[in-house]
Amino acid sequence: MSAVIDLNCDLGESFGAYTIGMDEETLPLVSSANIACGFHGGDPRVMERTVQRAAALGVGIGAHVGFPDRVGFGRREIHATADEVRTDVIYQIGALYAFCRALGVELQHVKPHGALYNQAARDAVLARAVVAGIAAFDRQLIVLAPPGSELARAAAEAGLPVALEGFADRGYNPDGSLVSRRQPGAVLHDPAEVAARAERMVREGKVRAVDGTDVALSVHSLCIHGDNPASVSLARAVRQRLEAAGVGIRPLRAILRG
Amino acid sequence: MSAVIDLNCDLGESFGAYTIGMDEETLPLVSSANIACGFHGGDPRVMERTVQRAAALGVGIGAHVGFPDRVGFGRREIHATADEVRTDVIYQIGALYAFCRALGVELQHVKPHGALYNQAARDAVLARAVVAGIAAFDRQLIVLAPPGSELARAAAEAGLPVALEGFADRGYNPDGSLVSRRQPGAVLHDPAEVAARAERMVREGKVRAVDGTDVALSVHSLCIHGDNPASVSLARAVRQRLEAAGVGIRPLRAILRG
Amino acid sequence: MSAVIDLNCDLGESFGAYTIGMDEETLPLVSSANIACGFHGGDPRVMERTVQRAAALGVGIGAHVGFPDRVGFGRREIHATADEVRTDVIYQIGALYAFCRALGVELQHVKPHGALYNQAARDAVLARAVVAGIAAFDRQLIVLAPPGSELARAAAEAGLPVALEGFADRGYNPDGSLVSRRQPGAVLHDPAEVAARAERMVREGKVRAVDGTDVALSVHSLCIHGDNPASVSLARAVRQRLEAAGVGIRPLRAILRG
Amino acid sequence: MSAVIDLNCDLGESFGAYTIGMDEETLPLVSSANIACGFHGGDPRVMERTVQRAAALGVGIGAHVGFPDRVGFGRREIHATADEVRTDVIYQIGALYAFCRALGVELQHVKPHGALYNQAARDAVLARAVVAGIAAFDRQLIVLAPPGSELARAAAEAGLPVALEGFADRGYNPDGSLVSRRQPGAVLHDPAEVAARAERMVREGKVRAVDGTDVALSVHSLCIHGDNPASVSLARAVRQRLEAAGVGIRPLRAILRG
Repeated sequence: MSAVIDLNCDLGESFGAYTIGMDEETLPLVSSANIACGFHGGDPRVMERTVQRAAALGVGIGAHVGFPDRVGFGRREIHATADEVRTDVIYQIGALYAFCRALGVELQHVKPHGALYNQAARDAVLARAVVAGIAAFDRQLIVLAPPGSELARAAAEAGLPVALEGFADRGYNPDGSLVSRRQPGAVLHDPAEVAARAERMVREGKVRAVDGTDVALSVHSLCIHGDNPASVSLARAVRQRLEAAGVGIRPLRAILRG
Repeated sequence: MSAVIDLNCDLGESFGAYTIGMDEETLPLVSSANIACGFHGGDPRVMERTVQRAAALGVGIGAHVGFPDRVGFGRREIHATADEVRTDVIYQIGALYAFCRALGVELQHVKPHGALYNQAARDAVLARAVVAGIAAFDRQLIVLAPPGSELARAAAEAGLPVALEGFADRGYNPDGSLVSRRQPGAVLHDPAEVAARAERMVREGKVRAVDGTDVALSVHSLCIHGDNPASVSLARAVRQRLEAAGVGIRPLRAILRG
Repeated sequence: MSAVIDLNCDLGESFGAYTIGMDEETLPLVSSANIACGFHGGDPRVMERTVQRAAALGVGIGAHVGFPDRVGFGRREIHATADEVRTDVIYQIGALYAFCRALGVELQHVKPHGALYNQAARDAVLARAVVAGIAAFDRQLIVLAPPGSELARAAAEAGLPVALEGFADRGYNPDGSLVSRRQPGAVLHDPAEVAARAERMVREGKVRAVDGTDVALSVHSLCIHGDNPASVSLARAVRQRLEAAGVGIRPLRAILRG
Repeated sequence: MSAVIDLNCDLGESFGAYTIGMDEETLPLVSSANIACGFHGGDPRVMERTVQRAAALGVGIGAHVGFPDRVGFGRREIHATADEVRTDVIYQIGALYAFCRALGVELQHVKPHGALYNQAARDAVLARAVVAGIAAFDRQLIVLAPPGSELARAAAEAGLPVALEGFADRGYNPDGSLVSRRQPGAVLHDPAEVAARAERMVREGKVRAVDGTDVALSVHSLCIHGDNPASVSLARAVRQRLEAAGVGIRPLRAILRG
């Protein structure tokens, strides 16, 4: 496993008078930002500001495309058609791209948000719809997806660059899938433990599963969270541990093209 | 005055299950289409379909940017800040551009819709905000504006290409401004009369004002409407008369660059 | 089977500048109106106008509650929680009730729209959530539901008045369920045939299923459509046939209380 | 001036995953709550929860009706027609009333929010439109308005109960109007000073204006804020001072009917 890794986080989810997430604290900790595009979160002002701040820190910029369900924050599954998903993805990528272009920075990747992420991970039709939307806009865009997912498969089949992501603060099943949030061991809260898992995922390509066995897990990026002070502390612990261990933290484009 | 003219029309305003306008009948009559971008009208499916049809007919594609007021159809003035207008414009241009890019066609122009058009026509601050949004995305985009407006002035000052538009079916005051819709003579309904006015505007650069005097009016485009069968008939009469008179009907890009 | 029946139709789905459905033609044909409440269709102006027109014709007024998905017209299933459904139902009933109260007319019934109707028909949890929302507002409100559905069951269990509806223009399976729209025979288009089926459903409580057998079907209301000229013709044929046969067409409240 | 006063505050403005305001800290400090109705802020879950908490504390419940402009938080003036305003008011009152009815509590008052409050304060046509919407629903609803405003006038003319509100933390001009936020002295931040002003407004019916003169100001309610820790401290200081001075803090209904 390589001694470089990307750290990605969802950012720019604030909206109008509403602030959500600790973007200022989190942005310096990551190398790639998944920026909401105005459907489930974000608005044009938040998008511009977030692209600007990310660019200033050299953070890779991604379109975090979601369902048009603001009251549900894009977390509710919607039985949308493939055509609806594909065109919603094109629309949102274009909207975020506009701010990248205006600010002279590259749009690096696309990651589906919330329910769309979950549906595209397991449903081949929706996965292909997401990928078709991305490919229609730019075949150089990196698709950020979970390992073994339909989304990763669809992106690879379409010839798009794929980056796989892992979660240092989530429990894993022996087959490499995430422990359901309804099960014990789904989420880890101890910063030292999470940071140690992160380092092992990066350096050894392995993670200890809930049954105590080791699972091979090869990822390009670790997903961290900036929702509240506790998650920011966790993210900071991960970053510090990786840096102390000499792991290079690089944007996805550097990881994949490097 | 040149013997070529552009004909522009608002299109792609349908939304979800809601159909508005007679796009199929109108699109073959125009050379430039102002396509709604999802704020006051339109949705990603309608946008893609409209770009596709316009491109197939060689019609120039424009972003019809509006206020985020779907229930008011973008027709209600909103006291938005310059920053809100500028970023809303960037967002909407990017969203429509995405479909142009996916379909391999050029984005030709931008025209503000409804209340934003009216506010940007008379308010220098909002006019500059609209232009700043356009310029941030692409300084080659043509700004479609009324003659003598703050919008036309702001675009020219910013060095963006400007196209001026006239209305063959609207009454003009002796100073070249439109007769208010609250006054008699504001709107003309007779196809022969409207078509004759269109021809005179194109060939002589003049229009008869409500007081009977002639007004000089130099425009690059005539705005037509496709709201209902009557407006489509009017548009058809205009097109036929211009063609019969040997006037070339060309997209804005051909008019301005030609 | 009684020689009276209610005819219900979805109305008031227009929105802002967007018109959908032929409400003026359809309203005189029905005895109960399911009026959209602003989530999937409708807006406060349309709601007031529709309540007003319905009241003037003595048509019973119902809240047609749906998912907050305007771009999908409430037709896309959403994995909403029971709490979301229950509170969305309360909100929408209150909004429509306000116009009834302002105009001094009774709110008669509630019918879920589109995807919410389908989900509440088969999912007991969502059915109970819809019913809980209705009961929280007013336990006298009639719940309009398909026969044999979870929605009808939940309403009955909660002690709310239930009205069952049939579809004269839809094919039925031998078990009394509707033929899926993906199967042949799902939708009937011949006005004479549909009208004859309507009469038989009302007078004999039977409908001929797709396999040629007779199905017992006891309903309080027939659902008709006013989407386009063809559906209005169908509705008119049904009404005329029923009237010619001496069947009384009465609002749900008269049917259930009568 | 009476030794009782109402304290009112905007509450229930959170939305979906977005939290705004410190409702839990603020609710125990007030006697009347202006609860957002889902147009500029709030959603059905937040509305129900806020009504529930307010009722549990004996706090009077009001509908905080606003423009349908969530991204602008209802703070942007919109050139809506009187008909749009009137029907939007009816809709929102009904939606909040539904939760009051479901929970068995009274709806006490209506206060326009943000831009609608400002427009209705100075524009007689919009003021009458707001009042017409309130009166259409329930002529017992108290209209909460600034002293000397068109809104107060319209409500009085229509025969609706009117409550006037003052601001202990805002500067006043010698004519009793608020100092514009663009002028120095518009907002006061010192808790002791604000509390002292509150006491004087209640006990003496006077406030010291920016020019040092005393202004007579007779109000039924003081508006406090719960946006952040500082505003909650200010509110707490006001409440403590009033209680220490023996002033009774009562909901609007008790003030007006008492």
